[in-house]
Order: sequence, then C-alpha cells, then structure tokens
Amino acid sequence: MTTHDSPIQLKAVSAADQPDVTPALQELYRGFEQELLVPLWTEIGDLMPAQPRSRAVPHIWRWENLLRLAEQAGDLVPVGRGGERRAIALANPTLVGRPFATPTLWAAIQYLMPGEDAPEHRHTQHAFRFVVEGSGVWTVVGGDAVPMNRGDFLPQAGWNWHAHHNATSEPMAWIDGLDIPFQYANEAQFFEFGREEISDAERITPERSRSEQLWAHPGLRPVGVAHTAPGSPLLAYKWEYTDRALTDQLELERAGHPGTVEPGHAAVRFSNPVDGSDVLPTVRAEFHRIARGAETTPVRETGSSVYQVFDGAGTVTVGDETWSVTRGDLFVVPSWQPFSARSEAGMSDSDSGALDLFRFSDSPVFEALRLDRTQKDA
Amino acid sequence: MTTHDSPIQLKAVSAADQPDVTPALQELYRGFEQELLVPLWTEIGDLMPAQPRSRAVPHIWRWENLLRLAEQAGDLVPVGRGGERRAIALANPTLVGRPFATPTLWAAIQYLMPGEDAPEHRHTQHAFRFVVEGSGVWTVVGGDAVPMNRGDFLPQAGWNWHAHHNATSEPMAWIDGLDIPFQYANEAQFFEFGREEISDAERITPERSRSEQLWAHPGLRPVGVAHTAPGSPLLAYKWEYTDRALTDQLELERAGHPGTVEPGHAAVRFSNPVDGSDVLPTVRAEFHRIARGAETTPVRETGSSVYQVFDGAGTVTVGDETWSVTRGDLFVVPSWQPFSARSEAGMSDSDSGALDLFRFSDSPVFEALRLDRTQKDA
Amino acid sequence: MTTHDSPIQLKAVSAADQPDVTPALQELYRGFEQELLVPLWTEIGDLMPAQPRSRAVPHIWRWENLLRLAEQAGDLVPVGRGGERRAIALANPTLVGRPFATPTLWAAIQYLMPGEDAPEHRHTQHAFRFVVEGSGVWTVVGGDAVPMNRGDFLPQAGWNWHAHHNATSEPMAWIDGLDIPFQYANEAQFFEFGREEISDAERITPERSRSEQLWAHPGLRPVGVAHTAPGSPLLAYKWEYTDRALTDQLELERAGHPGTVEPGHAAVRFSNPVDGSDVLPTVRAEFHRIARGAETTPVRETGSSVYQVFDGAGTVTVGDETWSVTRGDLFVVPSWQPFSARSEAGMSDSDSGALDLFRFSDSPVFEALRLDRTQKDA
Amino acid sequence: MTTHDSPIQLKAVSAADQPDVTPALQELYRGFEQELLVPLWTEIGDLMPAQPRSRAVPHIWRWENLLRLAEQAGDLVPVGRGGERRAIALANPTLVGRPFATPTLWAAIQYLMPGEDAPEHRHTQHAFRFVVEGSGVWTVVGGDAVPMNRGDFLPQAGWNWHAHHNATSEPMAWIDGLDIPFQYANEAQFFEFGREEISDAERITPERSRSEQLWAHPGLRPVGVAHTAPGSPLLAYKWEYTDRALTDQLELERAGHPGTVEPGHAAVRFSNPVDGSDVLPTVRAEFHRIARGAETTPVRETGSSVYQVFDGAGTVTVGDETWSVTRGDLFVVPSWQPFSARSEAGMSDSDSGALDLFRFSDSPVFEALRLDRTQKDA
Repeated sequence: MTTHDSPIQLKAVSAADQPDVTPALQELYRGFEQELLVPLWTEIGDLMPAQPRSRAVPHIWRWENLLRLAEQAGDLVPVGRGGERRAIALANPTLVGRPFATPTLWAAIQYLMPGEDAPEHRHTQHAFRFVVEGSGVWTVVGGDAVPMNRGDFLPQAGWNWHAHHNATSEPMAWIDGLDIPFQYANEAQFFEFGREEISDAERITPERSRSEQLWAHPGLRPVGVAHTAPGSPLLAYKWEYTDRALTDQLELERAGHPGTVEPGHAAVRFSNPVDGSDVLPTVRAEFHRIARGAETTPVRETGSSVYQVFDGAGTVTVGDETWSVTRGDLFVVPSWQPFSARSEAGMSDSDSGALDLFRFSDSPVFEALRLDRTQKDA
Repeated sequence: MTTHDSPIQLKAVSAADQPDVTPALQELYRGFEQELLVPLWTEIGDLMPAQPRSRAVPHIWRWENLLRLAEQAGDLVPVGRGGERRAIALANPTLVGRPFATPTLWAAIQYLMPGEDAPEHRHTQHAFRFVVEGSGVWTVVGGDAVPMNRGDFLPQAGWNWHAHHNATSEPMAWIDGLDIPFQYANEAQFFEFGREEISDAERITPERSRSEQLWAHPGLRPVGVAHTAPGSPLLAYKWEYTDRALTDQLELERAGHPGTVEPGHAAVRFSNPVDGSDVLPTVRAEFHRIARGAETTPVRETGSSVYQVFDGAGTVTVGDETWSVTRGDLFVVPSWQPFSARSEAGMSDSDSGALDLFRFSDSPVFEALRLDRTQKDA
Repeated sequence: MTTHDSPIQLKAVSAADQPDVTPALQELYRGFEQELLVPLWTEIGDLMPAQPRSRAVPHIWRWENLLRLAEQAGDLVPVGRGGERRAIALANPTLVGRPFATPTLWAAIQYLMPGEDAPEHRHTQHAFRFVVEGSGVWTVVGGDAVPMNRGDFLPQAGWNWHAHHNATSEPMAWIDGLDIPFQYANEAQFFEFGREEISDAERITPERSRSEQLWAHPGLRPVGVAHTAPGSPLLAYKWEYTDRALTDQLELERAGHPGTVEPGHAAVRFSNPVDGSDVLPTVRAEFHRIARGAETTPVRETGSSVYQVFDGAGTVTVGDETWSVTRGDLFVVPSWQPFSARSEAGMSDSDSGALDLFRFSDSPVFEALRLDRTQKDA
Repeated sequence: MTTHDSPIQLKAVSAADQPDVTPALQELYRGFEQELLVPLWTEIGDLMPAQPRSRAVPHIWRWENLLRLAEQAGDLVPVGRGGERRAIALANPTLVGRPFATPTLWAAIQYLMPGEDAPEHRHTQHAFRFVVEGSGVWTVVGGDAVPMNRGDFLPQAGWNWHAHHNATSEPMAWIDGLDIPFQYANEAQFFEFGREEISDAERITPERSRSEQLWAHPGLRPVGVAHTAPGSPLLAYKWEYTDRALTDQLELERAGHPGTVEPGHAAVRFSNPVDGSDVLPTVRAEFHRIARGAETTPVRETGSSVYQVFDGAGTVTVGDETWSVTRGDLFVVPSWQPFSARSEAGMSDSDSGALDLFRFSDSPVFEALRLDRTQKDA
C-alpha cells in the first residue's frame, strides 16, 4: 500500500449549494477521506468554473533587472554538467514558488560568459531561444552550429542534442522558452546527457546553419531530405526575414490591401516548412508589430502567453494590469485574460515608432485537442 | 501589482552539482526571490528527470467500499443545481488532496436514486460513463435519451448539454471519467447551467438512442448528417458489440490468425466513426480481455490510465504494487509505471475464466503532441 | 525518334472566334503539325467548356439481358488463367467501344458456374463486388474466405490477392465495380498472377470472414492489429446492417429527427473503419432508399456514378432520359448530369414500397483533388 | 435511347488464352454488342497490364522551333476573347492528335506581343507559368500584378481570375503547364469569362506581387490572413531563391552533409506555404540541378512528367530514347519509363557547367489516391 503525506482536506461545505453538515454527513465525509475519495459537489466551483480562472496572474519582469542578476550569476555560478545551463526562470507570483511563467510555459534568461560552453544534452521538452540583444553564441544542434543574433528565433524541438558555445570575448544573454511546466504536469519528460565537450569541428562559426541552407528558402523544400521528427527542421528564423515580412504587411495595409491582423497591427507566425504547422508541437511563436500610434483590440484566448518587448515602447494591458513597457521587458498573459497593446512613439527612440513584440504561447496544445476559444472584447 | 502569497522557497543547493553557497551567492538568490525568479540549476533534477517520475502513485479502490459510500451519499446528499451530480471522485494519495485519479484524469462513482434527475448542464471537459453493473438510468444528451446498461460505454464530448434520469425504482451506480485535471491544469474550462428540468418527451426510455440509430452500424455512415464537433457522435457503445468483438479476436487467435494484442490478450478501442480517432479528443477508452490463464507483457507508456475490472478475477501489477482484483475494482497506472495483468480463473465465478478490464487513459493528448512513448519490459 | 500513327488533324478554324484562314496561317498550321504542336485557340471550346460536358451519355442496361447473356457465357466461355474472370462489362455508347461505363468507372456482371474457381491474381485497380441476388460464392482475399449474399457489398482495395470460389451447385452472378478506366487513363496499373489454385483450407465456407471478426463491430477497432494499406480492411458490409441503418433513418424521420438526406430519402455510405474515409481510395459506394411515394431533388455533381436497382421499382431521370426501373437494372449518371429518382410502389412487389438503389461513383478522386462541386436543381 | 456512333469492335479472340471462336460464341458476342457489353477476357491484356504501358511516348520539342513558330503566330494570330491565349501546345505523337503532352499534362508555349493583353478568365484547371527567358509580362491574378522574369515559377490554382499584360516594347514567351488532359478525362471543368479589360490600377508593374509580400518569407506566415482555397497563395517563386536553394544543397554536399538527392544532384520542390503540400492539387513542380559531370540514377515512377531545360547542356535518357539537350528544350517522360540525366559541361556556355532542369508532373494525383510507386533501376 502506498502512503500519502497529504491527507484530503475537505473544504467547508456549509455554502448555499451544499447539504447541511449533519453528524451523518460528517461521518460520510470521514468515510470518503479514509477511502481516498473526494465528492464533486464540494469542489465543482473550483474545478469546473464558468470560464477559465487562471491560477497564474498577469505579471511583468523588467529586462534591466533580469540582465543585472544574470550578469551577477555569470560571475558566481559556473556552467557545467548537472546544472547544465545558467538559466534563470520567471516564477509567476501565484504558482507557489514554481519557476513557471504560466501553468504551461517556462521562460528564462540564459547567460553565457566569453568562451564558455553549455554542455550537450537532450530532452523531450520543446524549446526555443529568442535574442533581444547581443550576439556571439552559436547553438550546436546535432552538430549544426547555428548563430544567434538580435531578433533571431531558434526553435529546438524535443529530443535533439544541443549545446551552446560563446565564441566571442563578450558575454551574451537571450531568452529560453520551453514547455517544461506542461510536460511536468503531464509527466512526459525524458532527459539524456550528451558529450561533455563539443568537437572542434562544431566550434566553427558560420553565418548560416546547415538547417537554413536546406530549409530557409521561401516556398521551397529539399527533395532529397525527409523530415518526420516533431517540430521544424529549420533551426533559425533570422530577424532580416521577420522584419521584412512585418514591413510588407504594413505596406500592404497602406496600399489598401489585406495583410495585417487589424489596422496598424502586423503579425507573423513562425511555422514548420514541412507542413505549415506551428514550429513546435506544444509552443506557438509569433512576432507582432504595432505601428506608431496604433492599438490592438482586447482579445481573450484559452491558454497562456509570454511576451517580450523587442523594440519600441508602449503600454500593454493584461486583465486589470496596465504597464508601460520597453525593450526586453517580459510579461505574461494568463488564460482568458484580455490582452491589448498600444505603441507610444514618444516613449521610444525607435525610428519607426512601432512597438515590436515577440510572443509565445501554448496555443498548439489547445488547438490539437480542440479546446481553443477566442473572444474579442471590442 | 499583484500580490503573491507563496514566496519562492529556494531548495538547499549544497548538492554536488551546485555552486558553493557563499554570501555572494546567497545575496544573488535573494535577488532572484525579490524579482520572482528561480534558477534552473537548483530545480533541473525535479523538472527534467531522466524519465517520467509521476507525482501520482499506483493505487486501488475497492468497488464494495465505493458502492457502500455512494449508497450512504444517496441517503444524505441531494442531487440538484449547484452540486450538479452525486459523484465521488478517486483522489490519488500523493496528489495532495485533489480529487484527481492521475495528474490528468478524473474518475468517480456516480449514484442516482430511483426517480431522481441530475440537472442539465454542459462543460468543455470531455466525459464518459461506464456501467459495471445495474441499469435504469438514461443520460439525456441534447434531447436524445441514451440508456445505460451493464457493459455499456457512453462518451460525452465537451460542450454537449446533458442530464441524467433514473426512470426505475432502483438506485443505479456507474463510473464517470473526465479530463477535469487536465483542463484544470491547462485552464481551458467553460461551464454552463442548462434547463432546470428535462421535458416529458425526454423522459422516454428507448432501448436505443437516436445517436445509435444514426451511427452504430459497422462501417456505415449517414450521408444526410454531418458531424464536425469534437468527439464521437455515437453516444453509446453497447456491451453486446464489445463482447462480441473480444470473443471474435480470441476465436481468430485459436484458429491461428492475427487479431489479439498478444497471446490470450484481446483488446478493442472505442473509436469515433467519423474519422476512426479516439472517442474523445483527450481521452482514450479501451476494453481488454485476458483469457483464462493468460498474462500480459509489462508495458510502460507515457501518460496515465485508470482501469476498472468489469468481470472475472486476477492479479494486476503496477510498478511495485501487485493486487488481486475482482469486479468493480478501480486502480490507476501512473506515467511510465510498468503494468501487467494476469487472469486467475480459480478466483472467479465467471464462466469464461477471463479477466475483463475497462481502461481509459490520456493517450490522445500525448499522441497529438507527439509525446507518446511505449516500452515493453519483456 | 518515335513514329506517330495519328497525325494531328487540325479542326476547321473558320469559326467566329478564329483568325481568318490565310495562306500564311495555313503555313503556320503546317508548321505546328510538323512539330507536333496544336494551338489552344482551335481547341479551347472542347477542352475548357463552361461546365462539364461528358463524353459519356446516360444509359441503362436491363438485368434480364445481362443475366441471360452471362448464363450463355457460362456455357461457352471457360474461366481460367489469362482471361481471369467471366466478367462482361457495360460499354457506354459514346465511349467508342471501350468497356467503360463512364470515363472513370468499370461495371460488369460476373458469373461463376457451380464448383468453378476464378484464379488468384492481384492488381492496383480498386474493386468491389455487390450482390443483387443469389449466393454461394466465396471471395478468397489473402486467404480469408468472404461469403457473398444478396445485398452484401465487398470492397477489394488494390494489390490484395483474390480468387473466387463457387462452393454450391448453383451458378451465381454479381456485379464488379472497378476504377479500370481511371487507372487506364492515368497509367497507374500493375497486375500479377497468383497461385493457380487456392488451397483446401481456403475452400472453407464460413458465414463470416476473418475481416468481419476484426472490423465489423460498430465504433470498435482492434488494438492489436494495424491497417495502413489503402482502402478498408473490412471485406464485407453485410446487407443486414445496411438495411437496418436505412430503416433507422426513416424511423428517425418519422419521429421528427434529423437523419435522412431529404424527406423520404435515406442513405448510407460504406466507409473505412480505420479513418472514416471512403472504402476505396478512388471509389465511393453508397446505398440509397427512396421511401414509398418519395422523390429526390435533382442533383448535379462533378464525376460520374453507376447505380444498380436493388429492390422495389420506380422512375429515374438522368439528364434528358427517364426510365422505369426494376430489380437489377444498371444505369449511369455522367458528370454534371442532373439525377433524380422516384419510388413507385404500385410497380413493385416489395413490401415496403421503397426503391432501393446501390450507387458507386468516383467522388473520392474529385474530393482528394478539390475538384468536387455539387448543385441542386431544386 | 441514346445512339452510339462507335459500335463495339471486338478484338480478334483466337489468342492462346481465348476460347475457340465457334458459331455459338460469335452469336454470344453479337449479343454483347447489341446490349453494349464487352467481355473482360478479350480486353484484359490492354486494360490491366503487368505494369504501366503508356499510350504516350517519350518525345522532345526543341525550343528554337517552338519559339520560331510562336513568333510567327504573334504576327498572324490575334489574342482576344474566344481564343483567349496565344498558346501552342505540345501534342504527344501517340495521343491521337490531342494537344496533350502526356495523358494528364498540358504544356504550351505562350507568346505575348508588346503592349498586348490576354483577357481575363478563370477555370478549374490548375495552371502555372515558367519563364525560361525574357521578361516584361505581368500576370494579373485577382487584381494582383505578378511580374515574370527568367527562372520564375508562377502557380495559378484553379478558379482564380487571371489575365496577362505585356508592359514592355518586346514580345515575351514562356511556358504554361496545366492539368487540362486530366480534367478533360475526368470531366471536372468549369470556365468563365472575366472582364474584357483589366483596369489601369492593375497595369502597374511592381517588382513584387502582393502575394509575395504576404507569403514569400521563409518559415513565416501571416497571422491576419487565412488561405483555404486549393493551391498555393504564393503566386511567384522567384529564381533568386530557387537558385540559392540549389547552390546551398551542392555546398552542403561538398562539405560532407546531407542535402542533395544523390551525388551531384540537387533538387527543390515548389510547395504551398500554408501546409507544405504541392503548389497545385494536381501538379507537382520541381527544379533539378545536375552538377558538372554528374549523372542521375535511372528512376521509374507512376505518372508522367514534362521537363524543360533551363540552363546548361547535357544528355537525357527516357526509356529507349536519348537526346542531347540545351536551353529551352522540352521533353516528356511517360508513366513508368526510366529517366536519367547527365550534365555535359563541354556542351554548355554556362559558367557552372551544371544542367538545370525544370520539371512538372502529375504526382500529387497518384499520391492522393495512393497509386504512387517508384523504382530505381540502379
């Protein structure tokens, strides 16, 4: 027989909808507890709410604080086997001390000192890197050295061997996104250590990865190479292309043609060139540009998101919270909380006056299981 | 700004792989805590284990105990709006008092007194009923009265209006399975109350539901009716067909032809006739028959299962636990725990000597997100 | 250089839309002919019509004539290797002597004498049998003996070994449907001879095939057996189930519920239990029942159909043709020709007064390639 | 009753496998003919061959001849409503005078004089343009002006309005590929005339179409625009990208990494960015580069292809035919005929010495219907 450290604590059940607490009922509840049973009627309000009521709250983390602490960690905490990565994760205030940005998503700042390597490993957790500033690190994926530069998005589907290598004399920071909380909740995780050191051949620093040579050509796929593993075979989505796609959408809008999500709001989704699906089976990644002076319609969605401000400045509203934001700031949008953003050119030194937002979410989970809902609060 | 009741508790970090705890490091960790950050290197062992390490444990609930307590609840707890259902859920010992059989699955015994109705509602949680014994209740789904008899499986995809109606002079018990924990973790839930009372026209007690008239014909689909909503349009999978399918597989095996999973082990999956997929987007349901004297190969799978013994007797092994089981017993198999079953004819009064097991699991979630793995421990 | 027996015959081009035929133009056309070229402008009306204009015409074949000739063939033409089958195919009058019922579909009466075998072979052409009357033949598919009785539908996806065996003292006739014309036009055909004789073990005459034991259970699929080959693994769709499904639809209609295609018109589609798709990749098969006194709305569809009257009597209209029909009659509906049917109880000795029609068509081809269109001429 | 101009001509049936021709048999055959029936046993060898035996033959058309005749047509044949396009189609020698390059594919040279317009229309036939030389024409698709330059591939899925506009003072030629024969055989065609003249606003000559602004960004898709119609929303695949993708594959090969189809043989497939499928539902389009001195392995495939030499020179072998080829030459590969190509640098003035081949085929039809087979004759 298994032991249980956490005996069932029945909630007070004298609420209007609950039966009167008689000695007989108390006896029944003791019987439930003894047999490891819990009645629905005392829990239904919490378990089956009228609409999603997230255990997470809206929250913002300021880039300057993150970066400062990451720099200190760079001095104090070595990178190596066991700890694996100098990554510091956002912990949503109400997710009881867990390093979970939302109930399903992990977001962390990772920091690598000049010349440092983060050792090779692989795991079923789906991951990506996004670079808000800096350069000089190459992520080596299955022997393919992928450069990381400002604006680049690097998906890393589960179970690929990977290491990081800082080839320069400057430290570099970026953010990691993963589905760690989702896989933790669902208990799907596998993890393996790889080689202690990457080879000299992998310490090369090409401008383009081999994955880009194969897959980063618009509308073209290689005939000689199949890709059936989960997630995108394209390991870097370079800023140059993302920026141009967003610029093109706003240009189409100015010329009177469809293209944007709504007036002044351009957006692209990073997609798997094999089948057009999301880059990762459990994580959607998008880039949103709110043009100078534009504002988005408040939208609620099932599932949660993490945003990072890439450029510009503005104001974002998540549920009851409103924050002024600037480059690097990270904030979360819990399930079914309305979200909107407004660019504020005056606050920014960006030429365009646009507010550029990187976003990732757990939407593919909801869509695959047909649990997705969206509502505009216009 | 949001408050947070649960300040981050950093774990002890003096383990071999951790940096030495110096005053500077303590200062850094205080900085993390203040900024709602948690380092990966102190958590990685818990969050990213080498293989799934479930927070749930194997456990068994005995039907006689469940039924006894449900009968008592029948006397003491009314069924009505607010509490909605007289359902009593299995609470896995290590899931901290939550009424969760596994991290993703809910299993409960529901009990309805003679003449009682459970009021109409709908919710996004995907549900089903399975009847281990008894009869007399009709589940009214969107106005379609579906009878419930021993061995019947009734899927109930999310967002369908439904009520229960006991049309007889006997109480009836059955089990409910739902994805409540999964949707709770992912925060996808919507819920609506329906009518207080079903109409007299819905109090009819047909032997077959309208859904069966349309969809329970092997390999045949109606041309005039489309079904695009999630989950199966067939609202009852009658025992007669399930039993015959299992019997046929064992007969094929005896005649030397493929059909069974392995020697003496027949199994069918309840499927959506529209596209052959699982009956519910998040829940798989199967029926397994272990022939007299047969034993199954231990198998590990990502994701968790709940089993109910439908008939016969035998021994089941889940991880380190082994139990003798008989009709109605419910037990859980946590993620990646090896499971095997053996029929023991001598223990049973069943004619065939077979051990009949109903099973449901969260496998569709893992397959849709490409997180499924299976390993035979043969 | 290849020779060509069929020199290009340019059509007269003095029509209104054509350029004037000058000596220079004649010279140009001679140049085209010499280089094996044909201008679009002389052909466009034929090749790219405003709507499908079938090369086939509506036509009906009377069962009594087919059966009489098949019986004569039974006396005169042996069945054996080389000719393979005593099958006599419908040749649409305007398809220039080709044994093609429509541009894509083949329909034939096949006839087997008492004790006769049709030798084993396999081909990529997708096929089925449908039995309008009689019994006594088993089709042996990959060693699985499948009985054939009135009303049964037996799909036979491409590349399965198959033979026929008449186990009785009576001859038997049935119809074969295949995609021979489609594969002939597209040049996808492979064909192999199998064993000269089937084994004694295959001469058994079970009431149910093994495929039915595995797959003919409504909404249930075997867990232990995968099926990834094209087409349905279920080798017989028995009349008992088809009849019941149609009866149920009309009963639902009488009770005021959805189910039929339109008033008095019930219909089921034979489907692949693996994924709910059509039974064969290139052929759709359906059964339609027009209740006593009912009439269907004229419908046009891209693609062609062949119908066989299974029971009852009535009137059918295809384009400009209207025929009185009775048991066994076969008729074709070319692409985009409107089709409707009316049951006429007085003409029939059927108890129900319904007109029962078996139909097969090339619709899966059109749907897979997104060329399907439907128009009601109501 | 319908008449039939083409009475059935039974073939001689005195072959080894056929029954002896007795008076009774002749009488039976007359009965068949009268009832519009044809026996399988006289036709099976033609209809169900052991492997595909194409009615088409390998053939080559020389670009210089095509261009010369197109130029003459430019002088003699006006472009306008009715004839619609100055397109001159390849007529396979053995396809009886039909302008069909293969049984399923249409290939034509189209020619537009300076300042000329080809009027707007739409049709269900799926089409594309490929430009082997020249520039100056814009194809206006649904109001979007798409430039055409050497090396560009422009898909045109069915039922889109389109017109052509030569905005320059030079004539321009290109090739059109369509599934006209396939849709002719299957009778799926619809056709509508559009406006007589395109508007001045559509006479603009942008360097990039609006479709490219939305869809030609590698791995990125617009969030605000859905595309559910058949075929690719990207209306131009520019040579710059195709060339770079091929160059990259050969560079990967030189560095020892996977990427090419086989040594010295790079290839890309034009794909639909929405879902990674073929650009057109019935037509596959690819670009193959055979490096200096390389040779491809002979391959047989079900279905047929048309190739155009884009650059370089070499030798191609199709079945029993071998041709030296140079820029612009078009040749066909019938179903199941082995095909291989060899680059011959000495014959070419191309710098790289590579043989560049554009290819289109009917492969999506075969794959959708699971009739695809491939065999390497290595």
